[in-house]
Amino acid sequence: MTTKKATHQLTRQHNRDLVLRTIFSHDSISRAEVARVTHLTRTTVSDVVNGLLSEGLVEEVGRGESIGGKSPILLSIVADSRYLIGLNLAQDKFTGAVVNLRGEIKEIVEIPVHDDNGEKALKLVYQILDQLTRKKLKPIVGIGVGTPGLVNTREGIVVNAVNLEWQDLPLSQLLEKKYKLPVWVLNDSQAAAIGEYVYGGEHVPDKNLIVVNVIHGIGAGILINGRLFQGDGGGAGEIGHVVVQENGELCRCGKRGCLETVASARAVVQQMKMASLEEVFLAFQDGNSKAKAVVENAGHYLGASLANLIGTLNIQKIVLTGDMTRFGQEWLSAVNTSMQTGAFFRMTEDTKLEIGKLDYRACILGASAFLLLDDYSLLFNEEN
Amino acid sequence: MTTKKATHQLTRQHNRDLVLRTIFSHDSISRAEVARVTHLTRTTVSDVVNGLLSEGLVEEVGRGESIGGKSPILLSIVADSRYLIGLNLAQDKFTGAVVNLRGEIKEIVEIPVHDDNGEKALKLVYQILDQLTRKKLKPIVGIGVGTPGLVNTREGIVVNAVNLEWQDLPLSQLLEKKYKLPVWVLNDSQAAAIGEYVYGGEHVPDKNLIVVNVIHGIGAGILINGRLFQGDGGGAGEIGHVVVQENGELCRCGKRGCLETVASARAVVQQMKMASLEEVFLAFQDGNSKAKAVVENAGHYLGASLANLIGTLNIQKIVLTGDMTRFGQEWLSAVNTSMQTGAFFRMTEDTKLEIGKLDYRACILGASAFLLLDDYSLLFNEEN
Repeated sequence: MTTKKATHQLTRQHNRDLVLRTIFSHDSISRAEVARVTHLTRTTVSDVVNGLLSEGLVEEVGRGESIGGKSPILLSIVADSRYLIGLNLAQDKFTGAVVNLRGEIKEIVEIPVHDDNGEKALKLVYQILDQLTRKKLKPIVGIGVGTPGLVNTREGIVVNAVNLEWQDLPLSQLLEKKYKLPVWVLNDSQAAAIGEYVYGGEHVPDKNLIVVNVIHGIGAGILINGRLFQGDGGGAGEIGHVVVQENGELCRCGKRGCLETVASARAVVQQMKMASLEEVFLAFQDGNSKAKAVVENAGHYLGASLANLIGTLNIQKIVLTGDMTRFGQEWLSAVNTSMQTGAFFRMTEDTKLEIGKLDYRACILGASAFLLLDDYSLLFNEEN
Repeated sequence: MTTKKATHQLTRQHNRDLVLRTIFSHDSISRAEVARVTHLTRTTVSDVVNGLLSEGLVEEVGRGESIGGKSPILLSIVADSRYLIGLNLAQDKFTGAVVNLRGEIKEIVEIPVHDDNGEKALKLVYQILDQLTRKKLKPIVGIGVGTPGLVNTREGIVVNAVNLEWQDLPLSQLLEKKYKLPVWVLNDSQAAAIGEYVYGGEHVPDKNLIVVNVIHGIGAGILINGRLFQGDGGGAGEIGHVVVQENGELCRCGKRGCLETVASARAVVQQMKMASLEEVFLAFQDGNSKAKAVVENAGHYLGASLANLIGTLNIQKIVLTGDMTRFGQEWLSAVNTSMQTGAFFRMTEDTKLEIGKLDYRACILGASAFLLLDDYSLLFNEEN
């Protein structure tokens, strides 16, 4: 309700978020520069900064260069003033980490996953969180979970995660009850997208960004104006099941010739008839010609799908993350070539394709950072 | 710059837009109901409404039902208080119309297009606008142009329209200079999407909507949170050149097997070896089995592309417009069947697919309505 009082509070909250994000996205910054960037008045910035200083979220870290007059005091986020927990429920192992506000991993726990699904998989999640919350890092302000499958983030429900055999699992509710912390659940590829955006150097407000996560499966996270776009049902970015080969291999989704059946890490392992991606990677490094061909073919089909994504969304920055990025430049250039040929020149000429900077951390950091991005007030327990 | 003064003005502008849109999207509505819908105070609503009344944009149209107490006065947009011009630069004919604020067409001019392109095509545009501006409908507050091709809407430049042989044409600038009116140029499919959203009964704030325009070519307009998403380069929605048949027919874009080569009106005419879509339509109505098969096949491929769109964006409302919608329910059900089989059930189960309500008017109304949606202040010449 936008009563006068509420409007005033909303403005305060909005200003606080704006200032905090601005300080967050710089190593250090002066009050004057914050005012310039945010278009807020100097007075408003000072008031907000005083609040952040007293909460211990921000600190003064010395003086910057003078631009005529007194050299300004610089502000910086206190990286270890709060901690977040991020989880990545990947195919072969679950990983959890405690990270600070700068996305630095302070503690990490990994548990291999075999045929653990349903109730068993949930117990592994508890096991990781038990271990992480027992550590001495405090205060922890929330838990973010990146999981494969279709997720209803607002309600914290895993609608459908085939591998884990989770259907309509109220994961947020279960974890909130057990750990007394705010919990966000989101799709792993969407989490990876947030991770690259916030901690991978892409953190530009109003920016559009697509992050394509190529692991056991393939999914994308789409940021529009710096916000994760999840679609009406939470499933935006499910590009792994776009059909790229008529009458191709049978996919686990029941259709044939999905992108996942030719371009995912699993597809590559299957085509090489090997036991793991590690094995394929070693063969690839040794110059095994079949491995090269299989990886190039995988890149080719991924690129064709990216061309379609570009046609649909015309977003000019695409970042690739996940296991397949291990194949580096050779794979990337196969992807790029096919992406360029598959789309209009006028639409690809300004499109930049690159490999993400966070490696395996993307999903973990994204899951935790989602707490920051989406709702500061929730994260920092301010009045709502 | 968000100084205190600017903030105050922005708030006023925002409140005015909000109230105006609310009145616009109802046949008639009381001040109390406007306050309820907008969450503004009764006083603010009254102030804003007084302004709109004195501008002649809004009028009092009688009394509504009482809900205890005095029966409230109802407000309504004065449909003919302002006029807009909308243009549709379609393949075979250019159409221009003067429409009122309710999207009613008051005057319409059509000019058949043969091999008129480049400078000649531009002259046809002038010819239409000359005729329309000579009419006695006043005041005209702007011109909206829907054109095929890639458009830079912010700068009003047609970047590339292959059929018209326009490259980097500063159409807005040319028309603004000649007609002394604000001009918006946008892609025809994006215009059709705006048209269906504003005048086709989809006008729900914060709504996501995809409108797929199947004419000579195929394009889509994507509305996210009630706003047209154009991507970084203005080309979002270019789904006509997604490859759906490996080694298929050669497309005018130079690739093979694009969606346009199998699912567009042109493709259907070519496959039937007929002279026009009208001819195909008559054969189809007569029960010609080849015509049925060709139309069904076109629908099948379109549906497969929609499945991919759903996978990418998970937007649950899809509206089809354009010439191909003439084939009605049979075509629609072919599209729907293939869409349903091509995507995850959990993602399509809540997706609604239907034929648009505006027919040929979608692009014209959308091009003109863009003036309303994007910037009321521009349309109504209020202080900025």
